[in-house]
Order: sequence, then structure tokens, then C-alpha cells
Amino acid sequence: MEKNKYDEIFFNYQKSIQEEIDKTLNKSQPNNLYEPLRFLMEAGGKRLRPVLIMAVAKLVGGDPSIALKPAVAIELLHNFSLIHDDIMDKAPLRRNKQTIHTKWNDSIAILSGDLLLAISFRKAIEDFNESTSHLILAAMIDALIEICEGQGYDINFENNRDVTLDDYLMMIDKKTAKLIEKSLLIGGYAGNASEYDLNLLEQIGHNIGMGFQIQDDLLDLSAPNPKFGKIQGQDLKEGKKTYLFFIAKMQINDPKSIELLNKFLENKGLNEQDIPTMIEIFRNNGVFDIANKMIQEYYAKTLELLSNFKDTEEKSFFEQLIKNIFEREY
Amino acid sequence: MEKNKYDEIFFNYQKSIQEEIDKTLNKSQPNNLYEPLRFLMEAGGKRLRPVLIMAVAKLVGGDPSIALKPAVAIELLHNFSLIHDDIMDKAPLRRNKQTIHTKWNDSIAILSGDLLLAISFRKAIEDFNESTSHLILAAMIDALIEICEGQGYDINFENNRDVTLDDYLMMIDKKTAKLIEKSLLIGGYAGNASEYDLNLLEQIGHNIGMGFQIQDDLLDLSAPNPKFGKIQGQDLKEGKKTYLFFIAKMQINDPKSIELLNKFLENKGLNEQDIPTMIEIFRNNGVFDIANKMIQEYYAKTLELLSNFKDTEEKSFFEQLIKNIFEREY
Repeated sequence: MEKNKYDEIFFNYQKSIQEEIDKTLNKSQPNNLYEPLRFLMEAGGKRLRPVLIMAVAKLVGGDPSIALKPAVAIELLHNFSLIHDDIMDKAPLRRNKQTIHTKWNDSIAILSGDLLLAISFRKAIEDFNESTSHLILAAMIDALIEICEGQGYDINFENNRDVTLDDYLMMIDKKTAKLIEKSLLIGGYAGNASEYDLNLLEQIGHNIGMGFQIQDDLLDLSAPNPKFGKIQGQDLKEGKKTYLFFIAKMQINDPKSIELLNKFLENKGLNEQDIPTMIEIFRNNGVFDIANKMIQEYYAKTLELLSNFKDTEEKSFFEQLIKNIFEREY
Repeated sequence: MEKNKYDEIFFNYQKSIQEEIDKTLNKSQPNNLYEPLRFLMEAGGKRLRPVLIMAVAKLVGGDPSIALKPAVAIELLHNFSLIHDDIMDKAPLRRNKQTIHTKWNDSIAILSGDLLLAISFRKAIEDFNESTSHLILAAMIDALIEICEGQGYDINFENNRDVTLDDYLMMIDKKTAKLIEKSLLIGGYAGNASEYDLNLLEQIGHNIGMGFQIQDDLLDLSAPNPKFGKIQGQDLKEGKKTYLFFIAKMQINDPKSIELLNKFLENKGLNEQDIPTMIEIFRNNGVFDIANKMIQEYYAKTLELLSNFKDTEEKSFFEQLIKNIFEREY
């Protein structure tokens, strides 16, 4: 698909998503909850999940506009989880603006997050018959349980030295991949996809989601231009056991490097001056290469699954969208 | 209805509710989230809402056991809101046990609360066809939005001297009454109630809910045996503007009493030594009598609405249940 054509479709999706978000949150009372939500949702974001949902509805032969509300619902659900995650992580910034708990306080962040979750569920079923609503809500509920459990494991792993790569993959499947998996399913439901297509979409979502999270881990250390408000090596600083940590544990042999890795484990994070050293160790031991290879494998699997769909303009758009996701630099 | 018979039915409902709760939370992984939830839910509680739901299903001619799962769902939803409220209120105790954020920490309380909410939604639709599931979930989503907005107003009112009795009644309608209103509706849905009965149930729920909250306000000051872990006058200590405060504002004339009321407003709460004085002022100015009268009005309205149902044993149980709620001493 031509770049101009792709961009036009993409920005139209983004525009309708933002308009629907704004309309959803324009209620003013109680302002102490709706104002923080508008503040967060006006800051933008990639809108990856809702664009995927609209593109999927079109891919399976539906009207993308009928997928708009569930798409927005998923974006709001995702942002609910960001609000609560940011409290737990004591993160000062999100999308280069203050986080809600920083600009207001923890109580407002907890409560406006809860409200956003409720609004997202209501948004999901605004336009649908009972049968489709039921499928969409069930998918959202399952995704929410997985996200919470995944986040629970993530917290657990911080204080557990025995975590394995398998544990990590299970955790990111729950924390990140399941919502993207369910997003694609929901796009399929909205577009009235066949059982066969729904099954493919679920698998495509899983592979995008896993690749997406490992990319996140990799970009934390190797992004040419780190995300606004993020420093290079934030995960290393905070002692987060990412995909790259598990690969490093397997790859690294020399005693000095092992020592630094143990220091990272014992102190639950590294000093800022140790971070460039660790990045060099990762690079020299092929850790980045392995992570990149893994991401490419998820990408290839995604394309293979997608090849089961008929060649249409909608598929060509979807392919380009996935390519852009897998090639993102922030 | 004979007391023995009533107690037998009541305890059977309670028992099946507790068993279903235990079964729902017996999943062990990740234990850092499920353990706090079991800890909270094993501490008991009145189980008022789920018993009401089962009794309503029977009142309208349905099988109460089919209402068990939505009943448990509402109890879990209620407890989700308690977990998050307790963080915001920095409450050390709940049901005479440590609150989750005290025994664990804020992150675990935020996250296990989110998880409990998700579990409650999943529980609500386990047994139903799409059409009933849709009604039940829509009612739960509406209730959740109202609870969050009500809690938002409540926080708002703490820092606002211009709040009126009307504002207060709007706030408790959202924060407390709506969930009981929706509980009765859900019991009606589960029992396949007619539109006519559903409309009555909604109104009955509203009146029970409003009466319940004003009772809560009153019991804080006049309970013969304050609830475990609560001191007499906790609301006065914390500066909460309750129903009694608004009545007092209208009733009190003498300058010394007005001075204490202003001190309460300015300092956002009273010292412990001022609390007995304030309680005396309330008593001498008829504040308790007016609150009691108001509660009796909600009770009378509830009975009047209930009189539209046929006289059956189920109705007799329901009447007794409501009587016990309106006569509770803690």
C-alpha cells in the first residue's frame, strides 16, 4: 500500500478514536475525577490497540466505524491500567506530562482509574446487540483478569531470584499480550468474523503482543531516541528482570560481567554509572541480537498467520500497520 | 414469619454465599494477589447485598440458587470498593482485621482490588444466557460508575464548605444507594421478574439504600455497641459531613454550639475530647430524632412499595429481612 494512502487511513482512524474519547470524557461532574481523565487522554499516545481493532473489523469484511466504540473501550481499559501502574511504579511522567498521582494525588489516581475502567466497559457495549455485547464484554473481563494477574507476577518476580525465562514469558503473555490478543478478537466480533478468522486473529494478537513487549524491553536499552520522559536503561536502574536480563544470564560467561549481573540482582537495580557498562556487556554478548531475532520470529509468525486472509487492500493496510509496530523506534 | 424459620433461610443463604466466595478465590496464583483477597473475604461481613439478591429472586417467583452467582458478584464488587476506599481513607482495620494496604501495601491493595472487580464481573455472567448476562452486566457497570462518581463527590465535599443537604443526598444516592438499587434489579433479572416488578424493586432498593446510609451516619454516633474497630464519632473526628451534620447546621442556634460546628468545619474534624460535647449538642437539638424519623420514612416507603407484591412466605421473609436491616445496631 502506498505510504500516502496508508497514512490517510491511519490518521482517519486516529482522529475518530480521539473524537470518541473526547466525547466520552466531556462530562464535567465530579470534575475532580473527569479532569484528570481528560488530562491523561488528551496527551495522546500511539492508540495502537484501537487502530488495530478498527483495522481488524475492516480486514474481516466489516465496517470499521462499528468497531469504533469497542476500540475506544480497549484504549480506555489500557489507560486505566497505566494510571494504576504509574501509582505502583511511582512514575512521575507519562507521555511527557505529569502522571495523575503526581499532579493530583494517589486517591484521585486510584479513583479516576476505577472510573475509567467502568466507563470503558460501558463504552464497549453502547452500539451492540446482546449477543455481540456479551462476547465483547467477556473478552474484556478475561483481559482485565489476565492484566491484573500478570502485574501481580511482575511484582512477585521483583523479589524472587529464581524466576526463569519461562516464568517471564508467562508473565508478559498475561500482562501485555492478552490485551492485544483480545483486542484483535473484539475487532473480529465487531466485524462479524467467522470462527476460523477469530481463531487466526487470536493467534496473530498473541504474536504481536509478545513481540511488542520484548521490543519494549529492548528499546529501553537501545532506542535511538528514548521515549519522552524515559532514560536509557530505566529497567536496569529499577531492577526489572526483562527479556534481555534472562538472555544475558544464559549468555554471559566472564566473571566480571557475572559480578555486575549479580550486583543488579542483589541491589535490585544498578547505579546510573553502571548502566553504560551493562549495556556494553549485553551488546558484546549478543543479547541484543538474540532479542532482535526473537522479535523477528514473532513478526514472521504474525505474517504467516495473516497469509491465511485473502489479499485485499484491507489486508495490505493491516500488514503495513503490523510492520510499523514491529519496526517502531520508541 | 417465625424467627426459627427466618434464621434457617437466612443462614442457608449466607452459607451458600460464603461457599461460592471461597470457591471463587481458591485459585492460588499469583498468591500475592489471591491471598489478600481470601484474607479479606474470609473475615465475613453482613453479606447484606447478596442475601437481598437471593431473597428478591425468590420473591419474584424464581429459584434463589440461580441468583447465587450474581449475588456473589455484587458482594465482590462491594468489597472491591472497600479495598480501594480503605487505601484512600488510610483505614487500619476492616471487620476487626488489618486492611489489605496495612497488612501488605498500597500496590497490593490497588491491584488485588482491581483483580477482585474483574473476578466479580466474570462471576456475574457464569450461569446466564446472553440476554440475562447483558442486563446483569449493564446494571453492574452502571452501579460501578455511580459508586466511583459518588466517592469523587465525597472527596470533593471534604474541602468544600458550601455543600448542601441536597448535594449530600445526591452523593449518598450514588455512593451507597445505587448499588443496593442495582442489587435488587439483578435479583429480579435472575428471577425473571416482570417489568412491573423490576420497577418496584428498583424503587425499593433506592429506599433501602438511602435509609441504610443515613443509619450508618447515625450509628457512628449512637451505636450501643460500635462496629468492631470503630470508635464512636469516627466521622466527627475525620471531618466527614454526614446527614447529621447537615441537620445540625439547620437545627443549632446557640452561639457556643455553632462555634463548635465551625471548628469542626475549619479544622476538618474534631479533637477526641470535643466529640462527646458535639454528640450532646446533636442530641439536645433533636438531630438524632430527625435522622431517626428520616430513616423511618425510608422504611415506610419501602414497605409501601413492597405491599404491591402478593402475600407469600417469600414476601414475609423479605419483609423480615428489611426490618432487620432498618433495625440494625451496627
